[in-house]
Amino acid sequence: MKIGDIGEFGLIQRVAKAVPPAPSGLIIGIGDDAAAWRTSSGIQLATTDTLIENVHFKLGPTTWYDLGWKALAVNLSDIAAMGGIARYALVTLGLPNEAEVQDVLDFYKGLSDLASRCDTAIAGGDMVSSPAGVMITVSVIGEASVKDCLRPSSHQEACLLRRSASRPGDLVGVTGFLGTSASGLEMIMADLSVDSHAADVLRTAHLRPTPRLAEGRALVAAGVQAAMDISDGLVGDLTKLCEASRVAARVWSDRIPIHPTVTGIFGARAIEQALYGGEDYELLFAAPRETMEVVTRSFAGEALSEVTVIGEIMEGPAGHVAVVASDGTHIETEKGGWDHFAR
Amino acid sequence: MKIGDIGEFGLIQRVAKAVPPAPSGLIIGIGDDAAAWRTSSGIQLATTDTLIENVHFKLGPTTWYDLGWKALAVNLSDIAAMGGIARYALVTLGLPNEAEVQDVLDFYKGLSDLASRCDTAIAGGDMVSSPAGVMITVSVIGEASVKDCLRPSSHQEACLLRRSASRPGDLVGVTGFLGTSASGLEMIMADLSVDSHAADVLRTAHLRPTPRLAEGRALVAAGVQAAMDISDGLVGDLTKLCEASRVAARVWSDRIPIHPTVTGIFGARAIEQALYGGEDYELLFAAPRETMEVVTRSFAGEALSEVTVIGEIMEGPAGHVAVVASDGTHIETEKGGWDHFAR
Repeated sequence: MKIGDIGEFGLIQRVAKAVPPAPSGLIIGIGDDAAAWRTSSGIQLATTDTLIENVHFKLGPTTWYDLGWKALAVNLSDIAAMGGIARYALVTLGLPNEAEVQDVLDFYKGLSDLASRCDTAIAGGDMVSSPAGVMITVSVIGEASVKDCLRPSSHQEACLLRRSASRPGDLVGVTGFLGTSASGLEMIMADLSVDSHAADVLRTAHLRPTPRLAEGRALVAAGVQAAMDISDGLVGDLTKLCEASRVAARVWSDRIPIHPTVTGIFGARAIEQALYGGEDYELLFAAPRETMEVVTRSFAGEALSEVTVIGEIMEGPAGHVAVVASDGTHIETEKGGWDHFAR
Repeated sequence: MKIGDIGEFGLIQRVAKAVPPAPSGLIIGIGDDAAAWRTSSGIQLATTDTLIENVHFKLGPTTWYDLGWKALAVNLSDIAAMGGIARYALVTLGLPNEAEVQDVLDFYKGLSDLASRCDTAIAGGDMVSSPAGVMITVSVIGEASVKDCLRPSSHQEACLLRRSASRPGDLVGVTGFLGTSASGLEMIMADLSVDSHAADVLRTAHLRPTPRLAEGRALVAAGVQAAMDISDGLVGDLTKLCEASRVAARVWSDRIPIHPTVTGIFGARAIEQALYGGEDYELLFAAPRETMEVVTRSFAGEALSEVTVIGEIMEGPAGHVAVVASDGTHIETEKGGWDHFAR
């Protein structure tokens, strides 16, 4: 059997079964945005993500500076999705021998600029020969923001945002705008002609996403317990959150926050970008109505991205996500999220 | 300028200069076997290593089980080289879509078997599409063995083994045998015909190295402060240790421990394998004579690999390593260690 036959998630499930049971200190293992374990001083988080040339990016449209930024951003986004604080990054860069020294330095400049902005130190890593193309793996180590969440120390585990913690009756929220990154990718790949302000909005969203670290901590402080980041598209990722929580969800398509630039360029297709487009690296979260009110109040007036309530969690088949238009009609959601190994 | 023009170490030096200064909590950043930083409960370690198909391994001679074992082993060896305790591993596997599910499960079996043996939990990771070939990045997070080293808590940093801590007058020691892994590689690639016991010794050394975690902790407990693991060959790695410590070294070639199987097969060439052959993943360390006596006593009778004194640290040009035969003649050491980007 080829891995393409069972897809990424089938493969992850089989691997998770094959790996020995986790020791008692491990709180969250394979299957969430980051791993989490207890230490004598709190809860530690660790995550890793890899970018492969011509799979995850193409050099040219993506500059080396962008690549460094994004390779770190996708990992910091996983820490944000746990409501955590990022501390240290390890960076592995695989390069063909004919790579230019200046390109490598530009890569580390992009990475360092985002690291400084997010109070994360580049602690080490590895550089290896990779004749078939550039590959980057970043690992980030952080900790749960137990000070923000004000729970007794015996309940520190409740200071983590997890995919499995949503419950029927919860409202579903997101930070920022959806579909902007996918619109940026389309602009770049199809060489769409748009004005310079619009081009800047779309390019930044796709190539230099901002990890929502402050927002993740604010969600923890407000009492939210269920979240993940949106890397594979809203519908695909909400499906995963619902699978992990054994619930279903309904999304109200007219509530989905779409940047006016995206609506201006893509018109009726903007909603498709927002439902299915990947790599926005916004946070997707679920919480009871009263908690969601605390979230809305606590985000107002802070230097945090907007939050928007876009749907609700329901009882139903685990992982089922319905998208409902304002006239009550269901929108087709057969088109799923991004699967690395799907044929 | 191409990276091949300046080599791996020239590139690492330039990158280290380009990355922002480390925050105060970071004890060891870029340039040692693992990064180390202070936490409120001790000192944490983190390391990462990548294996790329047809650069670091060839499938066929290397089974998927071997690959899982070795991908973890090389990282655990970095923790051993710091005298640390390994706790958690993150595993990223890049695969072509036509990869077989069973191969992936064999990979995780090899990885899990070594993880269990070394009390390390597989906490998470990533699986991505890598059409150009298999790539693996493992990151391991651990901690300094401050309990073993019995220093006051204000001196916990002295419980770390570092490349930069050797001093003129120190003796140089190694664990185990050298050159066995390179001999295994040559046996496999040249399809040498050897008896089954010898084949087993060489194959195991090359494909399933044992990280010297217990030995690293025993070195810390004995008071050793300078060490690294031997991944790129004795001469190449001793050069790096000497560069980091701003010292020179002399190695006595007739003291170098070589497995009788290697001597039996390679005869006079065995010493070349031991001096220049990579991937033994033994520990190379330096300590004053009285500390070395403590090491020798403390290793005797324990279930630890042998230690052998093979040379001495001297004042001299930083990084200069001389290999001296028993008749006092110098052996040519122009041939350096493995450089990932050298032309």
